[in-house]
Amino acid sequence: MKKVVTLGEIMLRLSTPGYERFVQADQFDAIYGGGEANVAVSLANYGFDSCYVTKLPENEIGQAAVNALRRYGVNTSEIIRGGERIGIYFSETGASARPSKIIYDRANSAIAMAEVKDFDFDHIFEGTDWFHTSGITPAISKQGAEITKAAMVAAKKAGATVSIDLNYRKKLWTPQQAQQVMRELMEYVDVCIGNEEDASLCLGFTPQGLDVTQGQVDSAAYEIIFKQMREEFNFTHVVSSLRESYSASDNGWSAIIYDGNTFYQSKKYDLRIVDRVGGGDSFAAGLICGLLDGKTAEEALEFGVAASALKHTIKGDFNLVSRNEVENLVQGDASGRVQR
Amino acid sequence: MKKVVTLGEIMLRLSTPGYERFVQADQFDAIYGGGEANVAVSLANYGFDSCYVTKLPENEIGQAAVNALRRYGVNTSEIIRGGERIGIYFSETGASARPSKIIYDRANSAIAMAEVKDFDFDHIFEGTDWFHTSGITPAISKQGAEITKAAMVAAKKAGATVSIDLNYRKKLWTPQQAQQVMRELMEYVDVCIGNEEDASLCLGFTPQGLDVTQGQVDSAAYEIIFKQMREEFNFTHVVSSLRESYSASDNGWSAIIYDGNTFYQSKKYDLRIVDRVGGGDSFAAGLICGLLDGKTAEEALEFGVAASALKHTIKGDFNLVSRNEVENLVQGDASGRVQR
Amino acid sequence: MKKVVTLGEIMLRLSTPGYERFVQADQFDAIYGGGEANVAVSLANYGFDSCYVTKLPENEIGQAAVNALRRYGVNTSEIIRGGERIGIYFSETGASARPSKIIYDRANSAIAMAEVKDFDFDHIFEGTDWFHTSGITPAISKQGAEITKAAMVAAKKAGATVSIDLNYRKKLWTPQQAQQVMRELMEYVDVCIGNEEDASLCLGFTPQGLDVTQGQVDSAAYEIIFKQMREEFNFTHVVSSLRESYSASDNGWSAIIYDGNTFYQSKKYDLRIVDRVGGGDSFAAGLICGLLDGKTAEEALEFGVAASALKHTIKGDFNLVSRNEVENLVQGDASGRVQR
Amino acid sequence: MKKVVTLGEIMLRLSTPGYERFVQADQFDAIYGGGEANVAVSLANYGFDSCYVTKLPENEIGQAAVNALRRYGVNTSEIIRGGERIGIYFSETGASARPSKIIYDRANSAIAMAEVKDFDFDHIFEGTDWFHTSGITPAISKQGAEITKAAMVAAKKAGATVSIDLNYRKKLWTPQQAQQVMRELMEYVDVCIGNEEDASLCLGFTPQGLDVTQGQVDSAAYEIIFKQMREEFNFTHVVSSLRESYSASDNGWSAIIYDGNTFYQSKKYDLRIVDRVGGGDSFAAGLICGLLDGKTAEEALEFGVAASALKHTIKGDFNLVSRNEVENLVQGDASGRVQR
Amino acid sequence: MKKVVTLGEIMLRLSTPGYERFVQADQFDAIYGGGEANVAVSLANYGFDSCYVTKLPENEIGQAAVNALRRYGVNTSEIIRGGERIGIYFSETGASARPSKIIYDRANSAIAMAEVKDFDFDHIFEGTDWFHTSGITPAISKQGAEITKAAMVAAKKAGATVSIDLNYRKKLWTPQQAQQVMRELMEYVDVCIGNEEDASLCLGFTPQGLDVTQGQVDSAAYEIIFKQMREEFNFTHVVSSLRESYSASDNGWSAIIYDGNTFYQSKKYDLRIVDRVGGGDSFAAGLICGLLDGKTAEEALEFGVAASALKHTIKGDFNLVSRNEVENLVQGDASGRVQR
Amino acid sequence: MKKVVTLGEIMLRLSTPGYERFVQADQFDAIYGGGEANVAVSLANYGFDSCYVTKLPENEIGQAAVNALRRYGVNTSEIIRGGERIGIYFSETGASARPSKIIYDRANSAIAMAEVKDFDFDHIFEGTDWFHTSGITPAISKQGAEITKAAMVAAKKAGATVSIDLNYRKKLWTPQQAQQVMRELMEYVDVCIGNEEDASLCLGFTPQGLDVTQGQVDSAAYEIIFKQMREEFNFTHVVSSLRESYSASDNGWSAIIYDGNTFYQSKKYDLRIVDRVGGGDSFAAGLICGLLDGKTAEEALEFGVAASALKHTIKGDFNLVSRNEVENLVQGDASGRVQR
Repeated sequence: MKKVVTLGEIMLRLSTPGYERFVQADQFDAIYGGGEANVAVSLANYGFDSCYVTKLPENEIGQAAVNALRRYGVNTSEIIRGGERIGIYFSETGASARPSKIIYDRANSAIAMAEVKDFDFDHIFEGTDWFHTSGITPAISKQGAEITKAAMVAAKKAGATVSIDLNYRKKLWTPQQAQQVMRELMEYVDVCIGNEEDASLCLGFTPQGLDVTQGQVDSAAYEIIFKQMREEFNFTHVVSSLRESYSASDNGWSAIIYDGNTFYQSKKYDLRIVDRVGGGDSFAAGLICGLLDGKTAEEALEFGVAASALKHTIKGDFNLVSRNEVENLVQGDASGRVQR
Repeated sequence: MKKVVTLGEIMLRLSTPGYERFVQADQFDAIYGGGEANVAVSLANYGFDSCYVTKLPENEIGQAAVNALRRYGVNTSEIIRGGERIGIYFSETGASARPSKIIYDRANSAIAMAEVKDFDFDHIFEGTDWFHTSGITPAISKQGAEITKAAMVAAKKAGATVSIDLNYRKKLWTPQQAQQVMRELMEYVDVCIGNEEDASLCLGFTPQGLDVTQGQVDSAAYEIIFKQMREEFNFTHVVSSLRESYSASDNGWSAIIYDGNTFYQSKKYDLRIVDRVGGGDSFAAGLICGLLDGKTAEEALEFGVAASALKHTIKGDFNLVSRNEVENLVQGDASGRVQR
Repeated sequence: MKKVVTLGEIMLRLSTPGYERFVQADQFDAIYGGGEANVAVSLANYGFDSCYVTKLPENEIGQAAVNALRRYGVNTSEIIRGGERIGIYFSETGASARPSKIIYDRANSAIAMAEVKDFDFDHIFEGTDWFHTSGITPAISKQGAEITKAAMVAAKKAGATVSIDLNYRKKLWTPQQAQQVMRELMEYVDVCIGNEEDASLCLGFTPQGLDVTQGQVDSAAYEIIFKQMREEFNFTHVVSSLRESYSASDNGWSAIIYDGNTFYQSKKYDLRIVDRVGGGDSFAAGLICGLLDGKTAEEALEFGVAASALKHTIKGDFNLVSRNEVENLVQGDASGRVQR
Repeated sequence: MKKVVTLGEIMLRLSTPGYERFVQADQFDAIYGGGEANVAVSLANYGFDSCYVTKLPENEIGQAAVNALRRYGVNTSEIIRGGERIGIYFSETGASARPSKIIYDRANSAIAMAEVKDFDFDHIFEGTDWFHTSGITPAISKQGAEITKAAMVAAKKAGATVSIDLNYRKKLWTPQQAQQVMRELMEYVDVCIGNEEDASLCLGFTPQGLDVTQGQVDSAAYEIIFKQMREEFNFTHVVSSLRESYSASDNGWSAIIYDGNTFYQSKKYDLRIVDRVGGGDSFAAGLICGLLDGKTAEEALEFGVAASALKHTIKGDFNLVSRNEVENLVQGDASGRVQR
Repeated sequence: MKKVVTLGEIMLRLSTPGYERFVQADQFDAIYGGGEANVAVSLANYGFDSCYVTKLPENEIGQAAVNALRRYGVNTSEIIRGGERIGIYFSETGASARPSKIIYDRANSAIAMAEVKDFDFDHIFEGTDWFHTSGITPAISKQGAEITKAAMVAAKKAGATVSIDLNYRKKLWTPQQAQQVMRELMEYVDVCIGNEEDASLCLGFTPQGLDVTQGQVDSAAYEIIFKQMREEFNFTHVVSSLRESYSASDNGWSAIIYDGNTFYQSKKYDLRIVDRVGGGDSFAAGLICGLLDGKTAEEALEFGVAASALKHTIKGDFNLVSRNEVENLVQGDASGRVQR
Repeated sequence: MKKVVTLGEIMLRLSTPGYERFVQADQFDAIYGGGEANVAVSLANYGFDSCYVTKLPENEIGQAAVNALRRYGVNTSEIIRGGERIGIYFSETGASARPSKIIYDRANSAIAMAEVKDFDFDHIFEGTDWFHTSGITPAISKQGAEITKAAMVAAKKAGATVSIDLNYRKKLWTPQQAQQVMRELMEYVDVCIGNEEDASLCLGFTPQGLDVTQGQVDSAAYEIIFKQMREEFNFTHVVSSLRESYSASDNGWSAIIYDGNTFYQSKKYDLRIVDRVGGGDSFAAGLICGLLDGKTAEEALEFGVAASALKHTIKGDFNLVSRNEVENLVQGDASGRVQR
């Protein structure tokens, strides 16, 4: 069984029921999730030894986050306990012309306040095949950036492939701050996932002809920027999901990959959205699964896109689908006929 | 802060959860709402001093209705308490080819049984900039019609602009009864809101070439009738929302306005409907907000239509959106991308 | 009042709330339903004396199944009590590219273990106008097949019209087993309902040019097979619903009928699906209602299709609509405008 | 199977969830119930042919009330459909020192507006063994009183035993009005159920030494008043439940009966209350069941008290227990040990 | 109408449903509450002009807190908006031998980070009759202590009576820190509420013979300490509630007051607990109401204790009872008989 | 970390919400639990390496059972997947005089149909300190008995202490059958847990002077029987919980232990019951924890009883408490005061 390590921040998501607005809610659904944790769950689901690393407070809320991961088979033995609080975010689900909304309350979380010395990375990465993290962890604090770097160094030392989902978060840092930290980290990265916004804001590439707010995708423009990225940072793969936002209820969903040889664009799915949080993470996890399985870049991309298409129909951050279900969709059965 | 007064009937809406039919329901969502109350909440939301006038029974159910208004910032100090009961209506939400359904149980409500002398309109309208009501209140009872007229007279005396949403309700009166009452009220009205059905049934105009049941909109026909209405009643603005009912789940939504000069048709939104009750009220409130803000007729119309497009995604009668959210949609961002 | 008898298995359906997956569910909606029971409820709803025959355990869960039928007016006086358990199935509702899923746990149910002698069919069918059952009951056990045959014989003897919904269930038997049992039963059948899969797997007809998984419908191919079926088994009507599965959320829905003279294809509805379980049963019930009412084949088909279009918007197995609602839709009002 | 007819008003009870107060509630549990309907359900439960008579509006809310009765086996074929509305009441469940609260909105209900000629009592009472009603129906309107009297006359003519639960409701009439109507009805009554308040307010007996607000029961005082009642009205049995209200959560519960010979006081149960609405009705139904079964007055009383003790643990108005469960409690097993 | 000002921190309470433990919860009830806010709601409920002062973030969660207060009639016009976050606490409800549990996540809340200059206390206290706060606000931060003091100074200057609920919170400060701050504030306090723990930890009095963990109350010991407190700080009233904790489900509840003349102990209530959070606040509010109404110390105490007995039966922090309901209980009707 | 192995059947418990009866339920809470699984969760909770062995079907319902165990830290790596179905039971929660009720539907479950050769017990028991099972597993089928014996043999071979909870289930076998199987198993048992009913029905001991249905406990009678049991089977400890069933809502709860020297009776807790299912299992787990920790028999018993007292307040089968919480209760703090 191949071992994958992920590192990041798992948060308590307080989500209004149905389509309720924050000011209507008398209850919140309590969901535990976060970029890398979502990837970890997917990979455990696909049968990998999926080890998730973070720091969580010692109280019952921290324990509930651990339990959420254990429930779906993630190895939580390397989670450090301590610190003051778990990061929280509030979410409401949009519909039609009303966008979904997220309010963060994540400052001073246990992982943001953690230190490199909290983690024994040499031990953690023993026998690890793949390490995945995102651009969120280095953004949450100076220590977060240090921890990410230390983890990457140890991962490389252990011989793991390293992937990152750039995931620029404007509430956490400026493009300038981001680039200072992120460009340095790219040295350790093999597989780089991120759309043009991320490429621009985290890494300083200035794409042309792309305007994601318009739900338009110009793959030619992507080709140019991916080649530049690969050239500069020596990535094995550069990847982006392509979301066409028709409305909060309906999206087009596809992805592109460049492996130095071919530039490949996947099949596009038209999605009716149940919960789009974690959509990108499910894509990253599907892609990683594919590459770990020895699929070609094209096959891995299609697996990732199909996995993610399914995620958009599932409430919560985690993509609770089996390999088999993803493969069925890749094979082309999107008819939604009842499985008995 | 500009002051707006609204007058009407707030009811207890007993709504089946999700898409449940009445005969399935073991629970009802308890929602307090009503045409003018919905307008009042929107206007409080937009920052106006929004004063809602009605009569409610002294029991806890009446109090809950008051509280629902207070919660969203409506001034409830002019609500009279007394009478026997609050009006009730039952609602179930349709989907696809199955229409939503409403069963009224509103006879003998406190406001229907109220009398003109219950209200001190001179006091109520002190310093009022705008007065809004609908064709429902005069329809619920003879006293309702008298109260509406007395309020209009006092509003005009206080220098307020007067708007009405014609809102013909066939369960409450016949076209003949309606016209007898409504045509007399038009003398006090500045801004008249109503579609061709309302124009025909409440005011006796006979439009041609319009058949709203077919989800077709012939703006030319509207132009003719609007000119006739303006001519006869000297309205400053004649306005109608235009609903194209593809199904209970999907509607097209736009509006038209005529201010004596231009006849303007708004942008059209394609709506996935969460709850369409209160859709028209949110439009009226958006329009009033725009006109009070000094926007042009066109701008005010676009603000109203966008506000109402958002309402259709929100459970309950009230349109719980901010000015900022409406403006964003007016500016054209209907992509539904997550707001973080 | 015409009397209709239905016979089959009513099960406890444990359905995850909303779009939850099985592994997420902390609650199940408890719904009682089953092919023929669903037909029985529709027919009670339409005003027939609808008598449902089955066997259910004597415990409170069996009683709850009886109560679910009584609630909607089904005559349950012929239900036998005894046996070990009620059949159970688990269901989760799909969306977009994720199909709905059903897990059966129906072995050894009271009706599967019942025997012919448990039922006094001569008494049951006294004064019966119509008897309906499905290809599921003969599939659940050897006794199930015997009971079905005994019921058909008695029904014919009593002068009732007999209809069957072929409904091939691959978890219950092989095509070979199915054909052995089902072909023999066809002798008693007047109205045969089933799509090409059913025709092929239950009866051994090999249609050409049809591939339902592609959401394609080739009515010409259906015409050929229907003629063959009618020729061989002397059916008065051969009928099939036609589901075009665009996704788990959206389906096209229509039907075809052949009465020996005309081959008629109904209007097609585009459905937004709330709950598609019981969709076929609601169609069968609508068709039976139409034929019992003396409608033409075409009219009965349109009634069945419209009834079924409405069912897809209703949670649970039962189609809780009135004749009037179906007729409105048949007349063409699919606009979904609020009924006040 | 013995036939029992009950007549009265079934209402829609809108009950706040858990211990929520009215002003907190965003949902109401929708429960259909009413004094005589509750008795009807109990008797259907115990295996009698239980026929409930009332008038309900033709809309879906009226239908839901019918369905609630059908679900539990009540014969609803004699329910008349028509009128404007179903009576409604709102309830919140008290706890500890906070009493439960009920707000009525029952004026102008279909049954209150019904007329004697709506009902074919000769047909209804054909073959009837027992007729039960309460002092609420004659109180709701002049017609209600006329209908009750007409029913009693017909019941007696058909040879049925007649019982009444006096149930004085101070919101509906004054003692003077009550006595004028009720004393006249007593001529037809065999079994009279009512506590000292009822005896005093409905019939004009002035008990001494009883103060039910103190949760005190002086059986000697009851003995005197029961003898007076029996003497004047020639009742076969005079019965009262005895509620000792320690708090809204805990009550003592017993009953007394006088049959002309013995004055018998039942065992007392200490109740933890889940829902006390319908407690008295479940007692009446248990008593009637006992007497119909040919039990002695003492045995019937014990059956009624035990039935009612169980009712207090069941949410909703209906007492959903079997004969067997009641008998077990009568036999003395109140240990609450799990039944497997 | 008398004006009361309260100042403090309102938090988002995330409460597990029913008796669920934190690690079981998939949902949290979202309740907004906090010591002084709870008092403010009670006082608005009793008909006072109740103005609550705090600082809340500008996001929708902050708005929801404002709305919760407005819903129940609190004047929120003096609430400052800004800062980073609302304080949060998680709660689970205990039962029997399992205690309720609270986990705080309140650091860096808007009010804790606020500054004296954020508030225009002279304006706020204009025309104020009473000012109430608690020992929690000065404990949350240095600024909290400064704000509390500034408010007290302004309140006294405006002629208001000042009350405090000592409410020692061991998670927020040490006894030493508490005493340093609190003893200085006592100069401005007229009515001091606090049990012996508070007196000891906040003010440094060392009571003897009291052990609240044993659910024992020695009123003699209280008398001594109250006299000392009054002597040193010149309080007009020293007050304490007395909770006898038999278990998490059952408590005894009473209170004592000393006004310099008499030392009075109230009636004791035996409580079945629904939600004990806010129990102490409801007592303080009842007491303040009584004193503002001009009741004697004894009467005010009884009003406070009865109000609080009712609070323990109400979910959420707020005591949603009317004056009338409290008076009924004071008058002695604790029988819990249904109020119709 | 000490390793504990448990073996048994985990079932899907379908539990009506609140106090709802089966015939009322429109939803079931989906809870996964079973005697030994409940013990396994407790032991994982207390920090042991807790390995649970069973067989579960490969579908998602089986997976959900695995996930429920993983969530709380149980080692599920030895769970075999296969077979037809998971055992199911329905439960409703009693109150006051109404007992809780359980309906089993467990025949033909995967574990009941499993075979000895499905399990590699030598591998499973490697390094195991303790093995626990119950008298339910050998009762479910012949194979169940064989598997239990094979596990015991392997456990003893591996040097583990073996405990059993006799748990006689009259629906599964007769006393004669039970004794034939169970007496043979006793050879391997060190710690025997069971009340007098179990001792009598499973092992054939005939206690005198004990009648558990009366909620009476005669410890002297227990002493005699425990000595006999120890003498015959050479148990190190004989243990029984003592439940005094006052009602379904209130129980007394204590236990007794005999270790060959002393016969010790624990402290008694008066319980308000939230969910008593799993109460006995939580006691067994607490006792095992104590003995594994090296506590004396008395201390271990007190730990078990306190653990179990807490369990009765927790919904679901699992006892979700920490060691610390149990120790606090053992130390005597049953006051239920809020833990902040």
